[in-house]
Amino acid sequence: MNCELCEQAGGDIIWQDDRLRVVAVADPHYPAYYRLIWQAHVKEMTDLPRADRDWLMRAVFAVEAAIRAVARPDKINIASLGNMVQHVHVHVIGRWTEDRHFPNAVWGEVRRPDAVPAVVDQVRLAAVIRQALDALQATGG
Amino acid sequence: MNCELCEQAGGDIIWQDDRLRVVAVADPHYPAYYRLIWQAHVKEMTDLPRADRDWLMRAVFAVEAAIRAVARPDKINIASLGNMVQHVHVHVIGRWTEDRHFPNAVWGEVRRPDAVPAVVDQVRLAAVIRQALDALQATGG
Repeated sequence: MNCELCEQAGGDIIWQDDRLRVVAVADPHYPAYYRLIWQAHVKEMTDLPRADRDWLMRAVFAVEAAIRAVARPDKINIASLGNMVQHVHVHVIGRWTEDRHFPNAVWGEVRRPDAVPAVVDQVRLAAVIRQALDALQATGG
Repeated sequence: MNCELCEQAGGDIIWQDDRLRVVAVADPHYPAYYRLIWQAHVKEMTDLPRADRDWLMRAVFAVEAAIRAVARPDKINIASLGNMVQHVHVHVIGRWTEDRHFPNAVWGEVRRPDAVPAVVDQVRLAAVIRQALDALQATGG
């Protein structure tokens, strides 16, 4: 079985431990878009033991908090779909009311083909995400 | 401020406590579609205290497990978007490879306008969800 998230990182890895990695998604329309990818091949969240799910979700919320603090989006979107790549991963996306799809999901119809992406200091955001995940890890999640 | 999830249930309530309610979504294309709605008006997941977030996510995963056990979908989709209604709610959706949008998100382009929805025993599914949430509540989440 070929799984693209088993074979490739799926983006620039900005933090990882033995259970999950956080990658920055290179989407020109979405400057505050991260994916948390479970390192092992698991299809559904409920295939994970509860402690692992808790760890994944706490990491998701640490990324959400970092995006809010640094990029100040109008809304956060979180989703775990996996229809195309059936390997647990969670999208965490900063959204702006004037972005390409708002208020649609980023998987929905484009509303503003010429939307100008928000300006986000991605270097600082990645650093804040790393700090937050180091801190979470230090407290055992 | 008008908020439709403050003013209305948002669907048939199949279980609730003082923190959250679970509603069955009446979508003719998706027979295993539930929403968990936070009772209080809160915009983002990280506006909730960690214990409340943990409770919400454990309830989400209890619903996921019930859907998998009863409806046996090909995939589960979980999403917390809130672009339209900025009041914390989480979609938990059983997906089938032959459903209306697969492999797209249900917010994406329709792939099969004439898709026949899967047959799901919704009465039994609601009962299993209630049991699971009662059990989770009994153990304190």
